[in-house]
Amino acid sequence: MVLAAPAWAAEPKRQVIIDDEGFAIPHLMLLEDPRVEVLGITTVSGNVWANRATAMVLRGLELLGRTEVPVAQGATFPLLNSEARTERWEALYGKLVWKGAFMKRWAEPTAQSTPPYHGPFDPVDLPWGNPKLKALNEPAAQFLIRTVRAHPHQVTILATGPLTNLALAQRLDPEFATLVKELVIMGGSLAPKQVLEGKSAADFAREFVNTPRREFNIRFDPEAASMTAHAPWPKVTIVPADPSTATQLSPALLERLAKASRPPVAAFLRRMEPGFPMWDEIAVAVWLDPSIVTKAERLWYDFDVQFGPGYGDMLTWHDAYRPGLDEGQADVVLSVDVARMEALMAKALGER
Amino acid sequence: MVLAAPAWAAEPKRQVIIDDEGFAIPHLMLLEDPRVEVLGITTVSGNVWANRATAMVLRGLELLGRTEVPVAQGATFPLLNSEARTERWEALYGKLVWKGAFMKRWAEPTAQSTPPYHGPFDPVDLPWGNPKLKALNEPAAQFLIRTVRAHPHQVTILATGPLTNLALAQRLDPEFATLVKELVIMGGSLAPKQVLEGKSAADFAREFVNTPRREFNIRFDPEAASMTAHAPWPKVTIVPADPSTATQLSPALLERLAKASRPPVAAFLRRMEPGFPMWDEIAVAVWLDPSIVTKAERLWYDFDVQFGPGYGDMLTWHDAYRPGLDEGQADVVLSVDVARMEALMAKALGER
Repeated sequence: MVLAAPAWAAEPKRQVIIDDEGFAIPHLMLLEDPRVEVLGITTVSGNVWANRATAMVLRGLELLGRTEVPVAQGATFPLLNSEARTERWEALYGKLVWKGAFMKRWAEPTAQSTPPYHGPFDPVDLPWGNPKLKALNEPAAQFLIRTVRAHPHQVTILATGPLTNLALAQRLDPEFATLVKELVIMGGSLAPKQVLEGKSAADFAREFVNTPRREFNIRFDPEAASMTAHAPWPKVTIVPADPSTATQLSPALLERLAKASRPPVAAFLRRMEPGFPMWDEIAVAVWLDPSIVTKAERLWYDFDVQFGPGYGDMLTWHDAYRPGLDEGQADVVLSVDVARMEALMAKALGER
Repeated sequence: MVLAAPAWAAEPKRQVIIDDEGFAIPHLMLLEDPRVEVLGITTVSGNVWANRATAMVLRGLELLGRTEVPVAQGATFPLLNSEARTERWEALYGKLVWKGAFMKRWAEPTAQSTPPYHGPFDPVDLPWGNPKLKALNEPAAQFLIRTVRAHPHQVTILATGPLTNLALAQRLDPEFATLVKELVIMGGSLAPKQVLEGKSAADFAREFVNTPRREFNIRFDPEAASMTAHAPWPKVTIVPADPSTATQLSPALLERLAKASRPPVAAFLRRMEPGFPMWDEIAVAVWLDPSIVTKAERLWYDFDVQFGPGYGDMLTWHDAYRPGLDEGQADVVLSVDVARMEALMAKALGER
């Protein structure tokens, strides 16, 4: 299937909230694109703890001169999952490749750097300076509800981290999901295959070669992901790990993006570590222009919440096989036109 | 990796027991190949109930004039799984594509015929005549133990159905697995992709597109599969669903095999329904000549025994990630040279 193009003409600015665990290219793309209004940025624990993610977002907005964008810090802890529980799980079912904020060391040598280990309330000291800007005095879930209620049926939520905030928002306000315009999730996995050559691509393949249905954002908070899957969103697009294996944030692409960008954005880009698949960038790009999708499928979906070997695995069904227990339905992106996506990224950042 | 060739020269006849739920081309290949000694055929419930599988084997041996081959009927019921339990599971987690002996109807239209539904003790009436030959007065698990103990370290078990008999044998005799020469399993699944075009291939893809780690033989008795995974076999080769998607029992191949065969074998082949992937044939072919394997990987493996959405799913690990709870290690076949495999099938049946 081909995804329908958004009605840009009818909406001078498409409104979005970014719910994620840091500040990176997806944020830059949305903040810099003149056709987009970022209503706010929320944070959540995932790759790093929420307090660190919040500081990164605040400092990023300062460096970009976009201090008017509201920031709300989200959940520090997943609903049920925890660092101790993850270690017990690994003792039974095998080591996870990536554990985000719980990560102390890689199970085997890896091209990517090992992030420093912090506690959930450790003070944050960012290498590129700490923010003076403050987050709102309101948790992310509450900010999400308030903002969506202020713009009913207008707001897209781009959720590119664990789904803890969305699950909390939906239980705080059972009408929340129905008032959103669209939800775009980067998370889950169907059966990715390594596409690119090289050590970096091979290293990232370890995340799915033995566990095709496991992906970090979901695995960090499986219960929140399943709650999100059961909420009545009018429209859901999922970018699983699958299309990411054909993408890589190469030094050349980083330089192209930096050249396209305003000086503070360029400076930010030139500090980034290359080599990663562009998970979240795909989600943003697909929302900006669904015509870059070369293959997608409408599927029923949920996530495994049993504390067994499949904890957090993505579950999907075609119509005739679904259980019919209010599992979600989504357009699941399987592949994108990578050259067009890179051009779209450069264009969002200012390339003419 | 490439699998090592067997030492044919050192063994005038390689000894094998076939543990399966019927009588089909794999049996013909092994019975007709002059380099192979079939020490016995055991049956088990899976695609059909064990009593039906036993009658099929006995009648097949009569038609082939091979009534000297001993047959032992195996387990009628899986260890924990049952028809009622499967229906409750489906209500929670979605419909299975294929349920074997539990199958009443397809969830959606399918090219393959719907097999008739029987109870586990229903009398058997075969369309091609009922056997006069009798099975041994000994359950399959006991026959397996006795035969392996009579030829210690010499016998390969080719297990191409659910693994109930092997699990029972190992618990009846804790030395059983160590006395076997080699175990070849057709079962499990990593992440198959549809390779061939056409309705039949697309229909079979439904078994793995939403559940890449689920495969019928294992899903019918997950507990037996996990017990088998933990037993100390000297050598295990697994043929999962993955290599099967490049194969199809076409009418042309069936005719080629029939032309290669003795008249009673040819008559048997000409009664077969075409269109199926050659799951079990690959397992036999890989055992006869491992050099047809084009891609394989040595993996640690187990099967999910939690009664959740992943019940019966294959679990695999590379060294650095395994839990270290006596999970099994196997050479897992990912692809085969299909033309060479078809030639090998024809040769085993007599093509010169």
